[in-house]
Amino acid sequence: MTHKILVLPGDGIGPEIVAEAVKVLNVFTAEGNLSVALEYANIGGIAYDKEGQPYPDSTRALAQKADAILLGAVGGPQYDTLDRPLRPERGLLAIRADLGLFANLRPAILYEELASASTLKPEVVAGLDIMIVRELTGGIYFGQPRGIRVLENGERQGFNSATYTESEIERIARVGFETAMKRNKRLCSVDKANVLEVCELWREIVEKVGKEYPEVELSHMYVDNAAMQLVRAPKQFDVIVTSNLFGDVLSDAAAMLTGSIGMLPSASLNSSACGLYEPIHGSAPDIAGQGIANPLATILSVAMLLRYSLNRPELAERVEAAVEKVLASGVRTGDIYTEGCRKIGTVAMGDAVVAAL
Amino acid sequence: MTHKILVLPGDGIGPEIVAEAVKVLNVFTAEGNLSVALEYANIGGIAYDKEGQPYPDSTRALAQKADAILLGAVGGPQYDTLDRPLRPERGLLAIRADLGLFANLRPAILYEELASASTLKPEVVAGLDIMIVRELTGGIYFGQPRGIRVLENGERQGFNSATYTESEIERIARVGFETAMKRNKRLCSVDKANVLEVCELWREIVEKVGKEYPEVELSHMYVDNAAMQLVRAPKQFDVIVTSNLFGDVLSDAAAMLTGSIGMLPSASLNSSACGLYEPIHGSAPDIAGQGIANPLATILSVAMLLRYSLNRPELAERVEAAVEKVLASGVRTGDIYTEGCRKIGTVAMGDAVVAAL
Ligand SMILES: CC(C)[C@H](C(=O)O)[C@@H](O)C(=O)O
Ligand SMILES: CC(C)[C@H](C(=O)O)[C@@H](O)C(=O)O
Repeated sequence: MTHKILVLPGDGIGPEIVAEAVKVLNVFTAEGNLSVALEYANIGGIAYDKEGQPYPDSTRALAQKADAILLGAVGGPQYDTLDRPLRPERGLLAIRADLGLFANLRPAILYEELASASTLKPEVVAGLDIMIVRELTGGIYFGQPRGIRVLENGERQGFNSATYTESEIERIARVGFETAMKRNKRLCSVDKANVLEVCELWREIVEKVGKEYPEVELSHMYVDNAAMQLVRAPKQFDVIVTSNLFGDVLSDAAAMLTGSIGMLPSASLNSSACGLYEPIHGSAPDIAGQGIANPLATILSVAMLLRYSLNRPELAERVEAAVEKVLASGVRTGDIYTEGCRKIGTVAMGDAVVAAL
Repeated sequence: MTHKILVLPGDGIGPEIVAEAVKVLNVFTAEGNLSVALEYANIGGIAYDKEGQPYPDSTRALAQKADAILLGAVGGPQYDTLDRPLRPERGLLAIRADLGLFANLRPAILYEELASASTLKPEVVAGLDIMIVRELTGGIYFGQPRGIRVLENGERQGFNSATYTESEIERIARVGFETAMKRNKRLCSVDKANVLEVCELWREIVEKVGKEYPEVELSHMYVDNAAMQLVRAPKQFDVIVTSNLFGDVLSDAAAMLTGSIGMLPSASLNSSACGLYEPIHGSAPDIAGQGIANPLATILSVAMLLRYSLNRPELAERVEAAVEKVLASGVRTGDIYTEGCRKIGTVAMGDAVVAAL
């Protein structure tokens, strides 16, 4: 069976890091271990430049037929003055909605070799391994009504709606519990149920789904406390499940605890196992085209792609082991460089992973 | 002139820590340096127990006549099963709305003597001194419509509204700029304008107000990035101004960077200089009544009260200097204790500050 993979290099360092990740897939196909058909399309700023839209119809058509999507990054300062609907990040929001990618899995893992990059004390973060399950197609990101209106007194008022239905909460809660079942069986649901009605319903439904997972130890935490606890004692968490907006904030905080966001992948899944895989770092326009970007987060995104969309956990593990081996060998891109290591560029890092495979 | 101060001890450790803070006020009155009339009332769980409401009319009547309010903390596990409108935190939300306390000032200061309590590396947080200006009576906390409704398909949907008018944004922005003018003249406004229309308006109005403060260096940051930057390099911030919900999350994260939230006060101000002052830590029911709680955050809240509501900056500075002196002398409550220091209780700590004054 040949898997259709859509590759969306995007902006900034996107094309460079995606090229290295594709090399990893090529290793498996060359081995005869995997059959993939790669197609390429535009998203973000480059899509606007070439096709006038951040998520063009041509890309949409390919995305809807793909088994999995590998994305680099979107955005750049040259697009900041565009009308909002045309900006690169709107392409990202559009593809999430279009494909129903409601479950965003964002691991925050501290690699032992890179522990010193964290701004936190070693004992606080050593061995950190959290999985954040963020709802990605609902909540205030997509809620209606929204806009800027003029009130009777002539003043303008901006307004957005945070909404969740029972079924939206139920399906993301289920992903949270299933993820916890495969890990250490502890799930923390983060909300603000002491203030927001939408979170009252969230908590009620998470509790209800929890009844089906008696083995999972479920806890609830308010979002302000969760932000505190991530700083105070992050290792208390195994899996966190939360809404779109809270997940946006907490997953970035959690990622930064590791000190090396150039290492962190993500997966955005829908109900039919199609997924979009991307590094969590941005397009880094300041270093684009210089051949110095770290491709490891994108390579680890390929590992997630193999695991979640292609159902090839053994290949995913090989990728992850190869990355660990490369780190252990002491080579580093600039963003994760420390004294005593050998600094190499994007292509050399990709080659090192290929060699380790 | 006699200042009317309403004291709301609240729940848990509230009464113990407030008693020590009142001693500090008594020092100044005994000196003949200050004239205050203290009144006491109930808020939170104790108010529900005694008067059936978390913010009873009797308390409201006194609050509306007060020049300043000193609050301990609210909440406790025995109230978790109450109907939401009766829970302790609703008392807090009610008094904020009732008195129009729209500007919440939350400093995150790292005391040199307590630097080792931080989970962050010393070089990352040494000298940390951030002021977070959080909007406190608008946004999604109070936005209408809100609730849980039944959709046509029979499913329930929770919904809340995040709203801000131009004038609401303008007045909190002004507090942000004024605060920056008194400090290092750098203001970072945090929003999510790439996704939310309410934040588009926020950014536009903050920019507009900024024109009146050419000396202040204004920057904008998305909330996810702000959460990251607080972990990565918190000393880049001087003053942060943000919405109610983002401020709730970011101020708790910022506070935890110091490692000693038992030290952090807060002020909630309205447009006529009346303010509510409270420590940011909670009611700590687990240690209530044991005489071991740290009263310093409440004592430092009195310093803010003297500065912002009573316009007595020289007395505020004396309180702050006394707290520093006490820390330098090596006495500590349990929460900030480290080896080599002398552990003391709540009353002894209050006495130490009084002696240092
Ligand atoms: C670019 C932005 C719209 C996006 C989001 O807020 O979801 C990003 O921050 C992310 O987390 O993927
Ligand atoms: C108790 C709760 C309602 C409150 C809030 O969310 O504002 C608290 O977290 C705070 O920050 O004062």
